[in-house]
Amino acid sequence: MNRQVIIQELPNGELTTGHFAVQDGPVPEPAEGQVLVRTILISIDAANRAWMQGATYREAVKAGDVMHGYIIGQVIRSADPAFAKGDLVGGEGRWAEQVLCKGKLLEKLPDHRPISHLISLLGIAGKTAYHGLVNVGLPKPGETVVVSAAAGSVGIFVGQIAKALGCRAVGIAGGAEKCAWLTEELGFDAAIDYRGGNLFRELRAACPDGVDVYFDNVGGEILETVLFQMNLKGRVVCCGAVSQYNATAPTGPRNLPGLVVVKRLRMEGFIVMDFADQDAKAVADLSGWAASGQIKVVEDIVEGLENAPAALVGLLAGENRGKRMVRVAADPA
Amino acid sequence: MNRQVIIQELPNGELTTGHFAVQDGPVPEPAEGQVLVRTILISIDAANRAWMQGATYREAVKAGDVMHGYIIGQVIRSADPAFAKGDLVGGEGRWAEQVLCKGKLLEKLPDHRPISHLISLLGIAGKTAYHGLVNVGLPKPGETVVVSAAAGSVGIFVGQIAKALGCRAVGIAGGAEKCAWLTEELGFDAAIDYRGGNLFRELRAACPDGVDVYFDNVGGEILETVLFQMNLKGRVVCCGAVSQYNATAPTGPRNLPGLVVVKRLRMEGFIVMDFADQDAKAVADLSGWAASGQIKVVEDIVEGLENAPAALVGLLAGENRGKRMVRVAADPA
Repeated sequence: MNRQVIIQELPNGELTTGHFAVQDGPVPEPAEGQVLVRTILISIDAANRAWMQGATYREAVKAGDVMHGYIIGQVIRSADPAFAKGDLVGGEGRWAEQVLCKGKLLEKLPDHRPISHLISLLGIAGKTAYHGLVNVGLPKPGETVVVSAAAGSVGIFVGQIAKALGCRAVGIAGGAEKCAWLTEELGFDAAIDYRGGNLFRELRAACPDGVDVYFDNVGGEILETVLFQMNLKGRVVCCGAVSQYNATAPTGPRNLPGLVVVKRLRMEGFIVMDFADQDAKAVADLSGWAASGQIKVVEDIVEGLENAPAALVGLLAGENRGKRMVRVAADPA
Repeated sequence: MNRQVIIQELPNGELTTGHFAVQDGPVPEPAEGQVLVRTILISIDAANRAWMQGATYREAVKAGDVMHGYIIGQVIRSADPAFAKGDLVGGEGRWAEQVLCKGKLLEKLPDHRPISHLISLLGIAGKTAYHGLVNVGLPKPGETVVVSAAAGSVGIFVGQIAKALGCRAVGIAGGAEKCAWLTEELGFDAAIDYRGGNLFRELRAACPDGVDVYFDNVGGEILETVLFQMNLKGRVVCCGAVSQYNATAPTGPRNLPGLVVVKRLRMEGFIVMDFADQDAKAVADLSGWAASGQIKVVEDIVEGLENAPAALVGLLAGENRGKRMVRVAADPA
């Protein structure tokens, strides 16, 4: 049998665990070009929720689908000559114990331990933070970098990379405890609790020289507020809009495009795959910073496939610290 | 005496001619570093209205001020050794027959005739269109360029420059007559009347290959609509937000930043002065295209200083075709 999580119904508004069901499915047989993968880890990402809103940079997720997600696993059976039994692979998969993947959408992964680092520091989270900040935000030493969802999968790396590059790092997160953790444990220069009700004033205090780079994971009102404090020629790295994914009536930043003109801002969207040609440099830099202690790797691993729905719902509510993933099977020996 | 237009009261919402008053003032005497200029032409720009909303890229305009604006004129008396009586100059001035300017904010202008071209084709309008499209939008031949306020000061040049660069040019303007004029007289490939109520559908028809560059002069709902039809890696040139200047409750594009991420868009604001170092190339290209007939220069010259308030109010309502300016005095012999 093959345990799997399906989407019973697409959400209209807030996603709940009731939108999912856990069931047993058949163990599929790979056809030509396909590979059967035993799932080890599933990456839980805010983007998973965005996929339910319709086609984005990829096909939409539909009711009745086994839920889609990035997975790391080990090849069980291969009908693609590029892969052999036992290979460690990563790619777009499903929330299931065993997943049939197209070989050409998989990549072989190095046997890096712990394997979870291939999802956090050296995977989608770390690379998203790196490419977005370094290649889109173009920060210069001494500049102020602000990141929202700062305690999340990507945010923890954005702030730490900013510090490694000689910038001032300011995080926006939900809750005083998370904020204290960002400054005390992860070395952020300042962190602001957006639930405190004084984001504008506290941001002003935390960024006395204004904001040069804003790494936006949330959109909505926080984006609107930060835009007012951007410096001339500031850059807004558009990585996600988690504040909007559960919203039925999306809101846009009301000061746009006026402020973009006045301050000559650049807002630019990206996804991690856009910079695949620079992944090697990203991995080298990230590994180096982790080895020297400049970056702490924080992972939030939820045990058990059946807990994946709650893991995603909780992530959208901001309950995770660091890169959230679900462990489906133990790392191979 | 020195006839001048003052701002009696700042608008809260729609600007009317009642916010201005025409009066006689003294003829000022230049102090050291100052130059007294006899106004020939005043450029009427949507930005004039934006200045009334507060400090932007320049100081705010205040109640009681003689209205601010770009002027071209001739030096009457100079207390700045860089300027002599009779010099033709341009720069930030006031809506008055005679204006006291700081010498360092003025530039000497070539004796190009008609002088009005130094405001339209070779001035703020043409250069704004050129730098925004060429240096921010980075269009490639064969791409589709959409411009809003297409029949306005800047829009007419954006579309024609796009054609000169080998792009498909699509204009958005108010009214069927203006739209017919854009395609029949100015060579736009298509033009859409945004008042027709079917902007989304008509834009789809006019841009079968999607939109690669959107030159945004208006913000608001038109920006929101165009964003949906941008191609992957599309560029939004943020030049102005005229739909918002008279608004008491600004609206933002509700699809932002979601679409910016999904489509990896770049939105970038600029003002014409940002590219002053490339003005020579702009002037050479624009002159060449005008000489070869690829660009038609359309000017909308309102006679008489006392008509400047109505000229600005009308421009904000979209009544002009081409670069609007006010003639205060005849071109010198």
